[in-house]
Amino acid sequence: MNFKSDNITAIHPQIMEAIIESNQGYESSYGSDNYSIKLKKVFSEIFEKEVEIYLTSTGTAANSLALASLVKPHEVIYCQREAHLITDECSAPEFYTGGCRLEGISGSNGKIDILLLEEAITKSESLRPHGAKPGCISITQATECGTVYTTKDIENIKIIAQKHHLPIHMDGARFANSLVSIGCSPAELTWKQGIDIMSFGATKNGAMAAEAIVFFNGKYSHNFDYLHKRAGQLISKTRFFAAQFLGYFENNLWLKNAKHSNDMAQELLKIFQEFHIKNEYPVESNEIFVTLDPQTASLLQKAGCGFYEWGQPGSHLYRFVTSCFTNQKDLKDIYFLLSRTKKS
Amino acid sequence: MNFKSDNITAIHPQIMEAIIESNQGYESSYGSDNYSIKLKKVFSEIFEKEVEIYLTSTGTAANSLALASLVKPHEVIYCQREAHLITDECSAPEFYTGGCRLEGISGSNGKIDILLLEEAITKSESLRPHGAKPGCISITQATECGTVYTTKDIENIKIIAQKHHLPIHMDGARFANSLVSIGCSPAELTWKQGIDIMSFGATKNGAMAAEAIVFFNGKYSHNFDYLHKRAGQLISKTRFFAAQFLGYFENNLWLKNAKHSNDMAQELLKIFQEFHIKNEYPVESNEIFVTLDPQTASLLQKAGCGFYEWGQPGSHLYRFVTSCFTNQKDLKDIYFLLSRTKKS
Amino acid sequence: MNFKSDNITAIHPQIMEAIIESNQGYESSYGSDNYSIKLKKVFSEIFEKEVEIYLTSTGTAANSLALASLVKPHEVIYCQREAHLITDECSAPEFYTGGCRLEGISGSNGKIDILLLEEAITKSESLRPHGAKPGCISITQATECGTVYTTKDIENIKIIAQKHHLPIHMDGARFANSLVSIGCSPAELTWKQGIDIMSFGATKNGAMAAEAIVFFNGKYSHNFDYLHKRAGQLISKTRFFAAQFLGYFENNLWLKNAKHSNDMAQELLKIFQEFHIKNEYPVESNEIFVTLDPQTASLLQKAGCGFYEWGQPGSHLYRFVTSCFTNQKDLKDIYFLLSRTKKS
Amino acid sequence: MNFKSDNITAIHPQIMEAIIESNQGYESSYGSDNYSIKLKKVFSEIFEKEVEIYLTSTGTAANSLALASLVKPHEVIYCQREAHLITDECSAPEFYTGGCRLEGISGSNGKIDILLLEEAITKSESLRPHGAKPGCISITQATECGTVYTTKDIENIKIIAQKHHLPIHMDGARFANSLVSIGCSPAELTWKQGIDIMSFGATKNGAMAAEAIVFFNGKYSHNFDYLHKRAGQLISKTRFFAAQFLGYFENNLWLKNAKHSNDMAQELLKIFQEFHIKNEYPVESNEIFVTLDPQTASLLQKAGCGFYEWGQPGSHLYRFVTSCFTNQKDLKDIYFLLSRTKKS
Repeated sequence: MNFKSDNITAIHPQIMEAIIESNQGYESSYGSDNYSIKLKKVFSEIFEKEVEIYLTSTGTAANSLALASLVKPHEVIYCQREAHLITDECSAPEFYTGGCRLEGISGSNGKIDILLLEEAITKSESLRPHGAKPGCISITQATECGTVYTTKDIENIKIIAQKHHLPIHMDGARFANSLVSIGCSPAELTWKQGIDIMSFGATKNGAMAAEAIVFFNGKYSHNFDYLHKRAGQLISKTRFFAAQFLGYFENNLWLKNAKHSNDMAQELLKIFQEFHIKNEYPVESNEIFVTLDPQTASLLQKAGCGFYEWGQPGSHLYRFVTSCFTNQKDLKDIYFLLSRTKKS
Repeated sequence: MNFKSDNITAIHPQIMEAIIESNQGYESSYGSDNYSIKLKKVFSEIFEKEVEIYLTSTGTAANSLALASLVKPHEVIYCQREAHLITDECSAPEFYTGGCRLEGISGSNGKIDILLLEEAITKSESLRPHGAKPGCISITQATECGTVYTTKDIENIKIIAQKHHLPIHMDGARFANSLVSIGCSPAELTWKQGIDIMSFGATKNGAMAAEAIVFFNGKYSHNFDYLHKRAGQLISKTRFFAAQFLGYFENNLWLKNAKHSNDMAQELLKIFQEFHIKNEYPVESNEIFVTLDPQTASLLQKAGCGFYEWGQPGSHLYRFVTSCFTNQKDLKDIYFLLSRTKKS
Repeated sequence: MNFKSDNITAIHPQIMEAIIESNQGYESSYGSDNYSIKLKKVFSEIFEKEVEIYLTSTGTAANSLALASLVKPHEVIYCQREAHLITDECSAPEFYTGGCRLEGISGSNGKIDILLLEEAITKSESLRPHGAKPGCISITQATECGTVYTTKDIENIKIIAQKHHLPIHMDGARFANSLVSIGCSPAELTWKQGIDIMSFGATKNGAMAAEAIVFFNGKYSHNFDYLHKRAGQLISKTRFFAAQFLGYFENNLWLKNAKHSNDMAQELLKIFQEFHIKNEYPVESNEIFVTLDPQTASLLQKAGCGFYEWGQPGSHLYRFVTSCFTNQKDLKDIYFLLSRTKKS
Repeated sequence: MNFKSDNITAIHPQIMEAIIESNQGYESSYGSDNYSIKLKKVFSEIFEKEVEIYLTSTGTAANSLALASLVKPHEVIYCQREAHLITDECSAPEFYTGGCRLEGISGSNGKIDILLLEEAITKSESLRPHGAKPGCISITQATECGTVYTTKDIENIKIIAQKHHLPIHMDGARFANSLVSIGCSPAELTWKQGIDIMSFGATKNGAMAAEAIVFFNGKYSHNFDYLHKRAGQLISKTRFFAAQFLGYFENNLWLKNAKHSNDMAQELLKIFQEFHIKNEYPVESNEIFVTLDPQTASLLQKAGCGFYEWGQPGSHLYRFVTSCFTNQKDLKDIYFLLSRTKKS
């Protein structure tokens, strides 16, 4: 049983099948293959809007490139202060944007506090040009705390964005998980709430290496082919990356996988609750953050249960992630371990 | 029959098999999987030297990241003036290095003229600090003209590099083709001739998306993990990329594939010669550049034969690329077309 | 009476005289003039150490260029969270360093809290390579709160820096003010406490536009001529900038000016205290931050007294800066105004 | 007698006087001083158009910042292959623009060959996105060969620029010299011929350190205050830099100085011709390039005559620059030296 991350998993069989099927004969390279052409249509149907899409092989590249299409180097990107952008991407956003600043905004449960956001933007504006120019807002969906922005939450962000003429980016590395959690349409959770561009991840939900930058606003995709190529993200044999997404979307596999992950998280949460282990944040997608006493944590790890310590050393906060491959046996195993641990 | 490029091809069955085999259970992510660990050993054996390797999903990223490990932003990268770095990567080297300058050096058959190289470096040095600082030399093996640097050629570059204390990078997008063309060992064609770092491509020779940066000189790999991650090139499910290389190297598939491509190129060259079609450069790997009269070019293309016009418009220069998938039927088909064309 | 800043002032007569004297005949350009050569010697005498110096025309350029000599683009610069670097330089450090991240560390009275500093560095290291690499520490002397790091304070920073192998930069825009405040030698306040490089400002203390980057550690000045030129900071007629510094140092003008500013600040502080106006931070150099009720602030401003509101809107915090030109009349005028205001 | 450059000269007395006059009392900083406000009006009158201006302390910064306002990092800047941008600015344009590529276009007498320009742009466009995007054209006026683009020359550039939707930058480090050479109005030589932005130099023509970026097209000045500050080019005591320009323009000093320099160049040319010393390019401003036999060059230098060797070592090409300080005695002295040299 391994709850370290949803990126330690295999490729879902249906996606692997799609790769294998695409592996025949010659195909145009650099995005002009038939799979890529079809994929653009599929994305447009899913989002009920003609969208532009560009694929990348990592989520870090998807986020950073998306941001680079929104901002100029002298601008500020506002995001939650524990966003993946800040904590886990080795300053890739700074690199891709030519030196933008990420300004971390506090807020509970991994979400941006909109009063603090407004205050930060206003302060920067007042210091012009000694303070850098506000550039865009980025939200993470689902958040790094496993919570989910509601459509109302996003609308509140949008109001501030519009007031200050700032575009909004969504880091959707776990977008499918947030979508099934909310239960609305992809359009309702994105462009209908003012999202201009998103990083749409499939890797954590069953793909091999498939991330898409989705442009809802044509203003920002103009000339993006150059940024994409220049970043070394224009893969030559694109068919194999488009095929992953085609397999991912077929028969709503993406939603089924996400639902499974979320359901597993809820079951795992119940197990923790049964053992009086407290979760730190509401569990709204496929991540659970719990406080464990050191002995329990240690015993679980020694017994082969994979998961990470989170936050500051000594905080005893631990992260458990479920995936489309998590199964009842995994849950039974951890239940068994906890029952033994708690007795001892 | 399609000679447009060696990147329009499928994944070689042996490499696909390796991907499929690696698709089981959980594996550590971000390069700490067992496949990646094994791959480092395999590369070290092939090069008869302990090397560091980092994978990327494109050749552009491999080249640009490799260069970024060698130079500082205020430095100059010297390469042949028609090198892929300059002509085909949308200024990715400038981006990855934080604004280095690429200085194109002339030279026949796609190779750097060493007298002009020496002159360019000396001139920059004399203008310090008004001229930017010489930073490194990059050679393309095989070259963009389908020729191959001999070990003696590389030694001559090395002499200049050492004189000016500059490291050397090799763009080995078609390294396998050059290696079987020369007939020496991988070590003899690289670090034994002073190459410090190389981009080692597998994609054009049968892989899906597999490029490796190989460090022969530990001085430059220090802290490279940061550059790699920051560039958005640290894939999460690395096992599937390491597996491609493991399949590529097994039973010398890489050399067999390259030999096949090169042999096909020689056969195609003979066909051209039979029809008095002149090649522009010596054919030493898997690329042939020929001058075609416009009617012949047009008839071939109309008949479904894929290839690209090259160089300046009106030069009537065309590129034909063979691959590990090119077969006798392709050759027969083009022979047939040419015989019809030439008669008419 | 104008307490807005020490950069609204004229050029001190002695410095203007030095400019005028240097304005004769031909002189070599780009730093090879006799004034620049002499200046290097003078700086070395002042710091009791052979130093390298490079001039810039702004403090922002001096800070950013100095940092660019210490760090690589994938590294983090630690500074106090209200440091000028972060709040007032429009992301110039990010620009000059090729996209480094500034991480603001909290701490009282404008100084870095060393426990929080240690915690931040340790956390980044633990996340390698997902967290960016710790790169250097920058301290501001005098701080943005008008306080001064003691030699003991700097030693504490040095201990952390050495533990993590990080160089230290000092932003000395008001170095002279801090030096006369502490009462030690320039060497004791800098390289003897582990400072590797500093931005040495003269503009705020009587010069026209004269900032120097001083290298105490030769390791970082190697090839700096390229960075300096590339940043557009290598002035052609350098003699006029070196001359400013020569005039600044002659007969210890720089220390006399700083002492005057600091003394004026103490007298102004006493006036505020007499009127029960509270200072926010200890007054240790030439800046005073006080809380004013809105009516008082408004009446002072209407009467022509210049000063800025500071911090968040509504905090009623105001900054008063004295300079080498502040005189007894200025103090009398503000005393008079306050006495009238407080009565009303 | 010193013909090394026009930047080895003193500050013209009239400009020094303007600096001294501005040195009184308090003035707002960062460009909001009265001198800066007045200067904007003066520039607008000179160019018969409402312009935006930003000052820098070096020509390299003016050029690079101006270019940064026109292009995005993935774009190409076209300039003559020996332009100052390429040969003498240590890749500052690459730095300021976030990694743009400079593509050097050949052409005689230091001017861009418009057929080659058209060819280069067309080729880049045809390779999209593998070739970088054409971004802007930069011309140097007067050129690095001492020649001058006529209004017709600029119009020809404009036709290509408009066809490809590219803005045009003019490097006017010696704009005054070109203007008096052509004899037209500032407007006729710039925006009336399609120039969008220019670097307007005064330093080489008598100022201390005064360069202005002049925006003729408001589209590009939008938000430029951020770029300017972020580049460390927003000087605090701006009054002293605006004052230099005010002194420079008063009573047409700038045109008088330029005329004097150009006239001196013509007289020096006649002296060379008398001694059968051949000039390499037409002498149209204040620079003369001549071929000297090594003995003559050596004897002149030994006798204390300053000038630089130019071009490739061994080409025996030498540059002589006149300035507003060059006088009859200088000419007499070189005449005397040459007559002695030629006899011996």
